[in-house]
Amino acid sequence: MDIADWRKKIDEIDRKLVHLISDRARAAHEIGKLKRGLAMPIYEPDREQTVFDQVRKVNPGPLPDRDLLRIYERIMDIMRQIQQEEIAPESLAAEATPPDPGGTELDSDVND
Amino acid sequence: MDIADWRKKIDEIDRKLVHLISDRARAAHEIGKLKRGLAMPIYEPDREQTVFDQVRKVNPGPLPDRDLLRIYERIMDIMRQIQQEEIAPESLAAEATPPDPGGTELDSDVND
Repeated sequence: MDIADWRKKIDEIDRKLVHLISDRARAAHEIGKLKRGLAMPIYEPDREQTVFDQVRKVNPGPLPDRDLLRIYERIMDIMRQIQQEEIAPESLAAEATPPDPGGTELDSDVND
Repeated sequence: MDIADWRKKIDEIDRKLVHLISDRARAAHEIGKLKRGLAMPIYEPDREQTVFDQVRKVNPGPLPDRDLLRIYERIMDIMRQIQQEEIAPESLAAEATPPDPGGTELDSDVND
């Protein structure tokens, strides 16, 4: 195979990658909605650790875990941001009505 | 579907993602070997632009292009590094050979 052949292969992989990342984003969005309903925090270090552990466990090579995890850190950043955006509009709306005597129970204390 | 169901789905997606990223790394490694044989540069801005353009083109949502490209920038960083490692050892060894009697050819001073 020459460079052009390998690049065709990479383009095909990239199409699949983009679709999988998008599927993952949709799932993260759904979880964000559920978390909002349950007043759960967006950042859950234990869950993120589970994801990173699985990545290490299923890594078939040739990338060292370190490199794969660097890619995954970026993926997780973006996914956390999606959930933030899913939850933030309401908490921002709650903040926009300051003297609300009824409380701001949706004002979830979100750290990223 | 509850959060646990969505997380099962995400775990499944992650297994596929890890395998696809690994396939991509293998292809990048092969291209690195071919580039070495052809004395081609590792960093090819036009090719990287083509990759980013394709990512934008096939993006089905819900992620904005910007977020997807942030993930892809990290992927491309790692892939460039793989090719660097594929090419660097020999060029460094070649540099180290003539005047160096003690020889530290593994002392790779690779910039990323």
